[in-house]
Amino acid sequence: MTETQHLEPSEQLHRMLADAPRREIEALLESLSPSELARAVSRLAPADQEHLMVRLRPDDAADLVEHLPAPQAAEIVERLAPPDAARIVHELKSCDQADLIAELPDEGARAILSEMAPLDAAELRALADYAEDSAGGLMVTEYLAFPEDLTVTGVITDLRQRAGKYSDYDVQYAYVVTRRGKLVGVLRLRDLLLAPEQLGIGSVMIRGPKAVPASAGLDELQEFFSRHHFLGVPVVDDVGRLVGVVHRAAVDLARSERSELEHLRAQGIVGGEELRSMPVWRRSRRRLAWLSVNVVLNLFAAGVIAAYQETLQAAITLAVFLPIISDMSGCSGNQAVAVTMRELSLGVVQPRDLGRVLWAEARVGLINGVVLGVLVALLAWLWKGNVYLGLVVGAALALNTVVAVSIGGTVPLLLRRLGRDPALASGPLLTTVTDMCGFFLTLAFAAAVLSRLV
Amino acid sequence: MTETQHLEPSEQLHRMLADAPRREIEALLESLSPSELARAVSRLAPADQEHLMVRLRPDDAADLVEHLPAPQAAEIVERLAPPDAARIVHELKSCDQADLIAELPDEGARAILSEMAPLDAAELRALADYAEDSAGGLMVTEYLAFPEDLTVTGVITDLRQRAGKYSDYDVQYAYVVTRRGKLVGVLRLRDLLLAPEQLGIGSVMIRGPKAVPASAGLDELQEFFSRHHFLGVPVVDDVGRLVGVVHRAAVDLARSERSELEHLRAQGIVGGEELRSMPVWRRSRRRLAWLSVNVVLNLFAAGVIAAYQETLQAAITLAVFLPIISDMSGCSGNQAVAVTMRELSLGVVQPRDLGRVLWAEARVGLINGVVLGVLVALLAWLWKGNVYLGLVVGAALALNTVVAVSIGGTVPLLLRRLGRDPALASGPLLTTVTDMCGFFLTLAFAAAVLSRLV
Repeated sequence: MTETQHLEPSEQLHRMLADAPRREIEALLESLSPSELARAVSRLAPADQEHLMVRLRPDDAADLVEHLPAPQAAEIVERLAPPDAARIVHELKSCDQADLIAELPDEGARAILSEMAPLDAAELRALADYAEDSAGGLMVTEYLAFPEDLTVTGVITDLRQRAGKYSDYDVQYAYVVTRRGKLVGVLRLRDLLLAPEQLGIGSVMIRGPKAVPASAGLDELQEFFSRHHFLGVPVVDDVGRLVGVVHRAAVDLARSERSELEHLRAQGIVGGEELRSMPVWRRSRRRLAWLSVNVVLNLFAAGVIAAYQETLQAAITLAVFLPIISDMSGCSGNQAVAVTMRELSLGVVQPRDLGRVLWAEARVGLINGVVLGVLVALLAWLWKGNVYLGLVVGAALALNTVVAVSIGGTVPLLLRRLGRDPALASGPLLTTVTDMCGFFLTLAFAAAVLSRLV
Repeated sequence: MTETQHLEPSEQLHRMLADAPRREIEALLESLSPSELARAVSRLAPADQEHLMVRLRPDDAADLVEHLPAPQAAEIVERLAPPDAARIVHELKSCDQADLIAELPDEGARAILSEMAPLDAAELRALADYAEDSAGGLMVTEYLAFPEDLTVTGVITDLRQRAGKYSDYDVQYAYVVTRRGKLVGVLRLRDLLLAPEQLGIGSVMIRGPKAVPASAGLDELQEFFSRHHFLGVPVVDDVGRLVGVVHRAAVDLARSERSELEHLRAQGIVGGEELRSMPVWRRSRRRLAWLSVNVVLNLFAAGVIAAYQETLQAAITLAVFLPIISDMSGCSGNQAVAVTMRELSLGVVQPRDLGRVLWAEARVGLINGVVLGVLVALLAWLWKGNVYLGLVVGAALALNTVVAVSIGGTVPLLLRRLGRDPALASGPLLTTVTDMCGFFLTLAFAAAVLSRLV
């Protein structure tokens, strides 16, 4: 082993998979931090990845799967023989099981489910059916629930007997249910400390506990946890039966995941997360889907230049300024988009605040437009000694900054009102309109004073 | 009250502040969700905001402050008379106190601290000195700690006596310290349930508990919590004394905050978060700081066009394609930037993976470049019936896509390696280089076959 110590972990793993005993592989994996682990596994050849999963004990393999980015975990599990995959899936936490099954193509998911015990498979299928960012999709089914007619002693005895099993549960509350599974109370474990042992838990529990329906969305859950200082909330079905528990941490994580995916979409990574371990054709195709829309949008702006070709040919110096105006306006507009997106996520702005945002942006746009316009006008004047050139490009940039900033600030609100994804569509809409408008303003102003420019 | 019910909450608040009794104001605030609250307060006039803070009981005002975006909360508190502000700060949770003090200008912070009890002020000053995203900055100082020579009964008695105070603490563990405050163990409250009452807690506690130093950064904390399934971790100073507890939720929240602020910076909102409730001049100045850098960067790309002015004048149709090439290459490059930023945040890529990323991107760039190049070449050929025009713009776009994607994928890694902020600098560097290169390729190819173009 000594000679492998200076190798990358992925290279060490590759060599160990050939002949090292399982416990050496386990020791290496345990020595890595979660991100080193993800990096090492993502750099293994596909055959090595499969080999690794099969050589590990199913619970260790499950642990590994939980540390990989979701799309990568799904890719590897999908390539395993269904019985091997099922053994690993069985060891995952319920919420990770459901995420993984949801990430797999239907056929792969069915193959794995058919290898599992029928009751487990049915439960998992039900979990995977919940929308990913809903209470049903984020909840775990590992929780403590006791029937309401138990005594404090009964609960403590059960806790003591199953301490091993419960130690994985990460719960600080127990739920109290009727014989039919309806949620009627919540029991703080620390209250058990203080209660007489013979008391029924019905007298110790907090009655009428807060709960959320399985269909509650991420915004609703976020609102719930910012209103209440709970670490978890029970989830109930249509008829009030307890079906799971959503932890605050799961909601925070889902929210941060959503904002990272929004960021990706805003930059043109649409149709699912991309990892470089994916096949090059798939990555290419996904990016092209977006780029080809962009080509079409670009034609609108190009059309404006085409319409003014003769003006441009007569005053060719303008060609130097067109990209500056396009880029600067794009930047100004994107700043406004970013502030609106931020305010939307903080909740301090809503689609109906359109007028207020427009006014707030137009004022900033006016100040910045004048500053930038004067700057560029001076540059143009000094460069070519033609004050009209300066006036044309300066005025166009100043006006277009007001336009860009006003559109940038309001377009996410409009898209949200129309039920569209503001992260995805704000940028392209903005640049298309500001390019068209910027080119038009510059060339139209130039056409008006053409004799002074040449 | 009836006639105010259909008004915006901010308008209702405004009217109530004039004469309604405090409990009506409290009832209105309680009926609002946290985001409605933030929105309503941000829309009040500054005088109303101050009036509201002073009319509420200090603990209700503190509750309100905790629900506002940090820069806004600081702005309002700063405008209050220091004694009023101090009363509210006193009621905040320790981590929120420190955040608020850190957000205030030095002078304002000093004025408030001098109104507080000297010990409280000293503690708070120490807390505010920790870096915001360090363990010291994220920890709370509300935790349970017991000396190691106490018995189980002693702990339970204390818990029972101070149940009211502790109920705010949100803790599931108690820490065990020496008489000098050194951390020696952790006590799970549920283990107290199962232990004989006369036992010293030294025998029930888990010895040698995991802890982090107060200087631990966000990445380190994130790594810690993904390695260990804990809800919180004790924080110790240089000599091992317990100084606070960092909760997993605080780390998750800080991480999601950091990624949202990165997103803002990537879009050109530099130098602190912007809210539209801030004065227009400050918003303008902050945005201009960034835009003026951008003007300078733009001159490089414009310089390339200026150098080829005659070629462009001779083949003016090219002017229609220059913005298309610039925009398309920018989009392709930004996709690569987004994927690298995502992989950096997942930890699956590191600065030393430069070569690997370059290779992975160049292949995607080649495929997408050929597809887009052929598409644009066909458009140009069909439009003007000149195959050379198609070849020039198609070849330039294809090559420039490879360049853009290669730079986009690797520039964040280079910046990270140089200790720079990849979120801030990747975009502008990328567009400057791809614009220069794209304009150069198009115009140089055109110059080479100029006689065929005109």
